[in-house]
Amino acid sequence: MAQVVQNITRADQSVIDGLAECGVATVHEAQGRIGLLADYMRPIYSGARIAGSAVTILAPPCDNWMLHVAIEQLRAGDILVLGTTSPSNAGYFGDLLATSAMARGCKGLVIDAGVRDVRDLTEMGFPVWSKAVFAQGTIKETLGSVNVPVVCADALIYAGDVIVADDDGVCVVRSADAADVLAKSRAREANEAEKRARFEAGELGLDIYNMRERLAEKGLKYV
Amino acid sequence: MAQVVQNITRADQSVIDGLAECGVATVHEAQGRIGLLADYMRPIYSGARIAGSAVTILAPPCDNWMLHVAIEQLRAGDILVLGTTSPSNAGYFGDLLATSAMARGCKGLVIDAGVRDVRDLTEMGFPVWSKAVFAQGTIKETLGSVNVPVVCADALIYAGDVIVADDDGVCVVRSADAADVLAKSRAREANEAEKRARFEAGELGLDIYNMRERLAEKGLKYV
Amino acid sequence: MAQVVQNITRADQSVIDGLAECGVATVHEAQGRIGLLADYMRPIYSGARIAGSAVTILAPPCDNWMLHVAIEQLRAGDILVLGTTSPSNAGYFGDLLATSAMARGCKGLVIDAGVRDVRDLTEMGFPVWSKAVFAQGTIKETLGSVNVPVVCADALIYAGDVIVADDDGVCVVRSADAADVLAKSRAREANEAEKRARFEAGELGLDIYNMRERLAEKGLKYV
Amino acid sequence: MAQVVQNITRADQSVIDGLAECGVATVHEAQGRIGLLADYMRPIYSGARIAGSAVTILAPPCDNWMLHVAIEQLRAGDILVLGTTSPSNAGYFGDLLATSAMARGCKGLVIDAGVRDVRDLTEMGFPVWSKAVFAQGTIKETLGSVNVPVVCADALIYAGDVIVADDDGVCVVRSADAADVLAKSRAREANEAEKRARFEAGELGLDIYNMRERLAEKGLKYV
Amino acid sequence: MAQVVQNITRADQSVIDGLAECGVATVHEAQGRIGLLADYMRPIYSGARIAGSAVTILAPPCDNWMLHVAIEQLRAGDILVLGTTSPSNAGYFGDLLATSAMARGCKGLVIDAGVRDVRDLTEMGFPVWSKAVFAQGTIKETLGSVNVPVVCADALIYAGDVIVADDDGVCVVRSADAADVLAKSRAREANEAEKRARFEAGELGLDIYNMRERLAEKGLKYV
Amino acid sequence: MAQVVQNITRADQSVIDGLAECGVATVHEAQGRIGLLADYMRPIYSGARIAGSAVTILAPPCDNWMLHVAIEQLRAGDILVLGTTSPSNAGYFGDLLATSAMARGCKGLVIDAGVRDVRDLTEMGFPVWSKAVFAQGTIKETLGSVNVPVVCADALIYAGDVIVADDDGVCVVRSADAADVLAKSRAREANEAEKRARFEAGELGLDIYNMRERLAEKGLKYV
Repeated sequence: MAQVVQNITRADQSVIDGLAECGVATVHEAQGRIGLLADYMRPIYSGARIAGSAVTILAPPCDNWMLHVAIEQLRAGDILVLGTTSPSNAGYFGDLLATSAMARGCKGLVIDAGVRDVRDLTEMGFPVWSKAVFAQGTIKETLGSVNVPVVCADALIYAGDVIVADDDGVCVVRSADAADVLAKSRAREANEAEKRARFEAGELGLDIYNMRERLAEKGLKYV
Repeated sequence: MAQVVQNITRADQSVIDGLAECGVATVHEAQGRIGLLADYMRPIYSGARIAGSAVTILAPPCDNWMLHVAIEQLRAGDILVLGTTSPSNAGYFGDLLATSAMARGCKGLVIDAGVRDVRDLTEMGFPVWSKAVFAQGTIKETLGSVNVPVVCADALIYAGDVIVADDDGVCVVRSADAADVLAKSRAREANEAEKRARFEAGELGLDIYNMRERLAEKGLKYV
Repeated sequence: MAQVVQNITRADQSVIDGLAECGVATVHEAQGRIGLLADYMRPIYSGARIAGSAVTILAPPCDNWMLHVAIEQLRAGDILVLGTTSPSNAGYFGDLLATSAMARGCKGLVIDAGVRDVRDLTEMGFPVWSKAVFAQGTIKETLGSVNVPVVCADALIYAGDVIVADDDGVCVVRSADAADVLAKSRAREANEAEKRARFEAGELGLDIYNMRERLAEKGLKYV
Repeated sequence: MAQVVQNITRADQSVIDGLAECGVATVHEAQGRIGLLADYMRPIYSGARIAGSAVTILAPPCDNWMLHVAIEQLRAGDILVLGTTSPSNAGYFGDLLATSAMARGCKGLVIDAGVRDVRDLTEMGFPVWSKAVFAQGTIKETLGSVNVPVVCADALIYAGDVIVADDDGVCVVRSADAADVLAKSRAREANEAEKRARFEAGELGLDIYNMRERLAEKGLKYV
Repeated sequence: MAQVVQNITRADQSVIDGLAECGVATVHEAQGRIGLLADYMRPIYSGARIAGSAVTILAPPCDNWMLHVAIEQLRAGDILVLGTTSPSNAGYFGDLLATSAMARGCKGLVIDAGVRDVRDLTEMGFPVWSKAVFAQGTIKETLGSVNVPVVCADALIYAGDVIVADDDGVCVVRSADAADVLAKSRAREANEAEKRARFEAGELGLDIYNMRERLAEKGLKYV
Repeated sequence: MAQVVQNITRADQSVIDGLAECGVATVHEAQGRIGLLADYMRPIYSGARIAGSAVTILAPPCDNWMLHVAIEQLRAGDILVLGTTSPSNAGYFGDLLATSAMARGCKGLVIDAGVRDVRDLTEMGFPVWSKAVFAQGTIKETLGSVNVPVVCADALIYAGDVIVADDDGVCVVRSADAADVLAKSRAREANEAEKRARFEAGELGLDIYNMRERLAEKGLKYV
């Protein structure tokens, strides 16, 4: 059952880069409000905004062995994504693993468990979104799998999916949908820029979106 | 039942500004240790300290329609305060609504739900205290009310109440009590300045507050 | 039952300073993965890394009286450690107590409850690891004890134990073990430095730690 | 500030009894989906279904003094409702207070804190909805108020409001609205009885509520 | 995107019945410790032990429209399984829907959200495993899907998977694996029966499992 | 470091039995409101009330090996108490281990982690107080210790301490204090019986405890 899938399909790099520019909130809306990871996934430092192809890890609780296996599967631009077979807040990942991952071009980690050495990771500029910061060590006793589908923070993630992560959280986009989602995200951004200008000029959403009539129909009273 | 109350009574602006200077911990103590919102309300960035009159919103879960209605009711210096009729961590508010609110002079948002676009909000300098950061979108289907009393993070808030918010959390002061609470806050600050000097000089609270005798009476033993 | 133990055994200062340099994750590993406080203990600001001897406080819920008693027991370099007899998130500690503690050379506070005035504490450079930030005031009615063993955030802490705290959390080292743990921490650091160089050069953990054979024996398949 | 309001307006007893028969889910729907307390309020035993007029208590954290004051204000059929000024899970209430409350005809307790002696309370048939079961004792040092408005588990409750509680949780109905809400609850029950018969006969909600067309319009595809 | 998949593959009924007899803990072990839903999924009453084929529902937050759609897809012996696109504790399901589901032979509900009318459901003998008990109503505005893969309480569930649920929680078995997992579960039961007899006779696990030597090798000391 | 302490000092059996009769709330009060475990420790079924000497286990996360070691150390009347070195909700204990423990006269289990097979345990009449019910399996790879001091659910427990557990939770009494705590518990029970009779007769706590004057002094107003 324990396996490492070596060939995964990644989205086009320019598409991935475009999704990073759009950010989580826009991408999530553009693809129909799906793909968001749970809101307990928080960045270890503010300001990072990345996208990359998921190299997925299904790991036992309190056991980080599979991270070493997964790092060998990384290509430049990938993001490590770890789900567990049972909840754990142990610190699966620290500065040594980050050094190794960065040496292979890894852009960051999304982990439904704990992380440690966060001061070092911050200095190294290696962003992590995690459920916990916890120094508790892990063991290397039980196998898991790499590049199989994983549930991570309530979301189903396949290897090669595009992961977008920033201060709002983390969103997953299927690799086959990535180009389409990027196009919709760009359209959304254009639309928002126009709206932003109107809002800045003092127009109200009530008027921009023609809400007044529908509010009245539903029975809203001004007193 | 769904209604928008258009005329609300605000406290005097100089009183509001004074309360902002005093900050949450002082104001909370000065008014007799009441009015604090739950400690899960956290700022999206550190260092903001604001006060303003509450424009309140009672909103359905996962539905941000009433925010558009509320923004029209804002005057310069006001703070949006949103409670829900059922718990939700969805992202009711983002950079477009913030642009609209800022255009009307709004000073910030206190929301017993989620917020998104926090990197943009941080860059714009629009402070938010929320229960969650979550990119999940909301719908616009069900009415709520504006400027009715709302329960927000365990606290009862009336429209026009003064909201004080900083890194310690959020506190509400009834508008009719605001001047009195400011006076007590100022007195407290003066007293604390004097105490701080004595503490800096190495005096102990045991002596400054004459605690030794009462501790002995209660039975404290030194061994 | 309520008592203040006045003489406590502290570890050697140079050992304490060495442990601060090593940080929580390394110290925790070096002493056999024990002594970690629960991961809900978070710093009020990032970047602090301290170590010091514990002056322990066992306090009733919502009652901070014993903090005043404990401050008299501080020596330069000590860290205040507060556990409660029943859970509380009230704000036991603020800028006045911090001023008093700093005047006696205290390096920081570890509190299984709430803290307030965090903006002031940040400006003062007084680090705190706490369960909550909450402005809620406390009373001074019920005795507790100082320098007795306390359970703080799942860990048992004796007065004089060395507390190490940084962005990864908090770890306790028995004073009698401190020198030994420092030696092991230093050895671990040396080993990690060598490993880090190899990781930076692109070597894999699979090879550095000779994991491939054992993974195959356990049944890992590459597909 | 600390006060006991002695005269409160209660709803008609027959209305209260009717609301008890309808239960929480029906009453909550009938009054427009408002008035529900947070879902962490759980009964100490299953099967109780009560309604009564609220005698409200605003209590400090870990201090149950005001419960004694409130019991004097009880009339037969009332329900004690306790909110705190700061979160607490301490055990404010046990078998002695229950004996006293029952002697005055009290029907139950709704408490946004802890309760103890739950085995005795179960044997006595005194139902409690609480946030916690916890034996931790409380003190009697700080005043609170009785029959003032309280926030209890996210809901605003006035003295004399009708409290309805069963295995689904707790709901509050304003005393002035009680007769109207009962009428609507009864209508709802009648409607549900008719619907239940149709469901039992195998009809589908899709047909009973004419949903198929609207689902198709919104774009639902059968594959 | 919103769709109803009408043809799903179910496991053999005798296999499903066998898995129900084995229960969650045994099935979970027998299939290699995978497939468990999160431990916050609790039964509304004790003692139920069921298995059935999953009819899956992906529903928006606070919107139970798709439950009506799903009920039409039920065959006798099926279990409804609902995951949401964003967290919700609203009460999606009550006695009317249960009546409808039972009329089609449905055995129970597994819902990563709230349920209400639990006293009625208990009396009807319709078991539910849920994240919350909450009377809060839902709306019928937004489409979801039926019989698509859903993430429910951390587990990925496909339509037609076998759901096993009892007082220990909920476990999912892929339909294609069900016969094999049943065989392993039966073998496990046989082995446990033999072990149980030896334990009852006073033998120790240390001897039954030959643990003493390995414990000594690892360094366990008896003092 | 991993060790099994074989000789522990137990309190007198008649004292232990007396403490069981008094129950958690009374014992906790009688010993000065200390010794309570966290309120998240809940019984798997209602109505059990036990006391016994603690055989303590310090176990790694998700690893139940030490339970087998501990069972050999049990004497009739003992209670197993398990704390972990890092948080875990895995199911460390099920019906086979319960069979083995019961064969040695064990009265129950208190575990700061998960338990499974709860339907079987209920039928067997083996009471458990736990943090979670979860079928997730554990491994047997890492040593822990038996009969060393453990922190279990916020409380420090020594081997041989008396554990009292019922529907209110769990309380620990040092073995050396047990006789004294029993005497105080009995006195408390006698006092409560007298008070209960007065409460039943309709007397108020305000009068029984002479509270009226002190309330007035503190400033309570009746309006």
